[in-house]
Amino acid sequence: MAPAAITPPQGVQQTSELTASAVAHKIAQTASELKNGSNGMETSLRSLDASKLTFTRTTTPMKVPQAGDPIIATSSQCTDHMITAKWNCTTGWDAPELRPYGNLSLAPTASCLHYATECFEGLKMYRGYDGKLRLFRPDCNCRRMLTSATRISLPAFDPKELEKLLIAMIAVDGPKWLPTPGTMLYLRPTMIGSAGALGVAAPKEATLFIISTFMPTLSSPKGLRLLASQDGVRAWPGGFGYAKVGANYGPSLMANSEARARGYDQVLWLLDGLVTEAGASNFFVVWRSKEGKLQLVTAPLGGKIILDGVTRRSILQLVRERLTDGSSGLDPVEIVERQFTMDEVVEVVKDGRMVEAFAAGTAYFVSPVSVISYKGEDLQIPMAKGETGEYAGLIKNWLVNIMYGKEQHEWGVVIDEKDGN
Amino acid sequence: MAPAAITPPQGVQQTSELTASAVAHKIAQTASELKNGSNGMETSLRSLDASKLTFTRTTTPMKVPQAGDPIIATSSQCTDHMITAKWNCTTGWDAPELRPYGNLSLAPTASCLHYATECFEGLKMYRGYDGKLRLFRPDCNCRRMLTSATRISLPAFDPKELEKLLIAMIAVDGPKWLPTPGTMLYLRPTMIGSAGALGVAAPKEATLFIISTFMPTLSSPKGLRLLASQDGVRAWPGGFGYAKVGANYGPSLMANSEARARGYDQVLWLLDGLVTEAGASNFFVVWRSKEGKLQLVTAPLGGKIILDGVTRRSILQLVRERLTDGSSGLDPVEIVERQFTMDEVVEVVKDGRMVEAFAAGTAYFVSPVSVISYKGEDLQIPMAKGETGEYAGLIKNWLVNIMYGKEQHEWGVVIDEKDGN
Repeated sequence: MAPAAITPPQGVQQTSELTASAVAHKIAQTASELKNGSNGMETSLRSLDASKLTFTRTTTPMKVPQAGDPIIATSSQCTDHMITAKWNCTTGWDAPELRPYGNLSLAPTASCLHYATECFEGLKMYRGYDGKLRLFRPDCNCRRMLTSATRISLPAFDPKELEKLLIAMIAVDGPKWLPTPGTMLYLRPTMIGSAGALGVAAPKEATLFIISTFMPTLSSPKGLRLLASQDGVRAWPGGFGYAKVGANYGPSLMANSEARARGYDQVLWLLDGLVTEAGASNFFVVWRSKEGKLQLVTAPLGGKIILDGVTRRSILQLVRERLTDGSSGLDPVEIVERQFTMDEVVEVVKDGRMVEAFAAGTAYFVSPVSVISYKGEDLQIPMAKGETGEYAGLIKNWLVNIMYGKEQHEWGVVIDEKDGN
Repeated sequence: MAPAAITPPQGVQQTSELTASAVAHKIAQTASELKNGSNGMETSLRSLDASKLTFTRTTTPMKVPQAGDPIIATSSQCTDHMITAKWNCTTGWDAPELRPYGNLSLAPTASCLHYATECFEGLKMYRGYDGKLRLFRPDCNCRRMLTSATRISLPAFDPKELEKLLIAMIAVDGPKWLPTPGTMLYLRPTMIGSAGALGVAAPKEATLFIISTFMPTLSSPKGLRLLASQDGVRAWPGGFGYAKVGANYGPSLMANSEARARGYDQVLWLLDGLVTEAGASNFFVVWRSKEGKLQLVTAPLGGKIILDGVTRRSILQLVRERLTDGSSGLDPVEIVERQFTMDEVVEVVKDGRMVEAFAAGTAYFVSPVSVISYKGEDLQIPMAKGETGEYAGLIKNWLVNIMYGKEQHEWGVVIDEKDGN
């Protein structure tokens, strides 16, 4: 009568960590494909191959908006061209195409419109003060795009090929669209599940596209005003907060609108009281510990709750190299990547131990924070230099110098624009 | 030196429950618009208005696939027409259009492709054994669509107008595409953020569309084999598990693929050991409590973790009306909506107290479960009548009778097909 519990046969995988297993399988498969050079193997799917890129130039070039044009604030003005590449599960990646910017044609049953099978990256191209065009650590973005695609059941690719496509795109549109030293444009590689089928399953077709848009400067001279959210949770253990997938963004918009309606700029996302991200940026504080140690504190990547930000990673490395020995002129700080709570932040502010706080990401760059609202209280965060704290100011300066070529650094990848002309 | 904590001025809302506040504001605003009949007010946005529907018939009608055609299994074959309606934040809803089925044209910057600003519904239309075409409780789906749209920052609408559009759609395509008694087609109302702008904000334009597809029968005569997930978590308190938004689906696909690769049909989603949903369906067990009470147990809606399923809701109501007094011929069951853990399920199975289990939703309908795998053990779940348990079998029969007109019931809404011809 009593149904027995049956032990599965030997060799069957025992772990119940399904998502982790699936991700591990896909990563192993990707690594194996890359190693074997699947292009040459008849039995394998075609890999994404930037060397196969075809070029179709626009015959109706658009006008470049000038500084101050209101269209810039809409983040909707794209450049003349886009790159697209299609994938399907039986043949792999088609040759990528550079073609005139234009609408995508999607079946109403396309997976991405129903099941959020989509991921993206955001990076900027910079016209240096030396006249050169640069990307900032595009290898990091391309690797993260693979991580995100894997998590959301989209196809794998060699991140180096994506990087080559980014470079091809800006070699074509950079000279016309980004002529002025000290300015930037935004690059948005995106992948969507484009298979038309309503079954809830990994999409059998996908489309990669790369577009470039104007983007306004988002940081405020008054500092960001953050409103801590107590009910909305951006990401959770076992979720997907570490991946740059659409599913992390849409659900956050309600809280975001509410914060703006109340006079704040962004939501400070908490998880069970732990501070995680500010808006769609990583969050840093500089405080003095109870023992008097000056510390740069930010949430750790370990729990897969927060995004592995390229700006975050770069800040930690620069601070490690330049701010831990006193040579910068500022007091050295200790880097602490650990979980910390909003209650700790409140205590530090009330004790007068908060030195400064800032958000960091590609869109908001390094944005000093002036206020954090929590449980109805506006906590004032110092900004020692008026428009910024000293540490955020110094760090931002270092990054700007690399991005715009005032400091020659391996992170600033110079683009050869001759290729595009 | 110490920055002061400033109390905000009187009248400013104190709650830090941002998402809940934002949702409440939007619901209040929607209710007020509906009450005031915004159509007649110049100062208001136009409401969604089914009476304004325009009709453009196809000039290239498609062939209806016959039973057994492999295209049915792909859930991609749509009917001849679709309905679309556009919204923008300055004017509200445009007149909806019934037009030939075809691809959507979307800017590569469209919000839905990046930020998962998308929600949908799934319901079926049934060709009754009495020759009539019916929907099953479409009012429930239309109300839930409003809940989902609100949660994902898409525009509000009167659910009754959406219901009228669904009816208009199937009045046109029903006669040709669903002629055979005892068969069904799937309806998929969808809303997407179609504004082209990369700023992370509520979309300023949206598109509602309604399509209808063939869908295979998903339940298996051997019963569903479920694999409990220990790492992947579908939904979280403060998240959006209760809403039918794309962001709940894409992230679940990895675990789903892994489950299928291991020989299971669906993932049984746990949250801190609590049993929540099976695949994209609600999950029910019938067990005997330790005290010997026969109980129908399912997770509660309270925590906003699980979907408020129309099938779930209907099952609970039918069981309440017909299965609690013994008149059905089966032993009466007590309905228990409460949190329960996977450990309880294991204990009940091992004690021989499990009577049956089933998944319930529109896609999988009422699907008996034969196996639940947890921590490497395959727990056998009884199916007393071979292909089903007795309770699932009886409940399914009740529902089928209502859906296909063998029982006249207010839930089976008969469609007047004359309107479409």
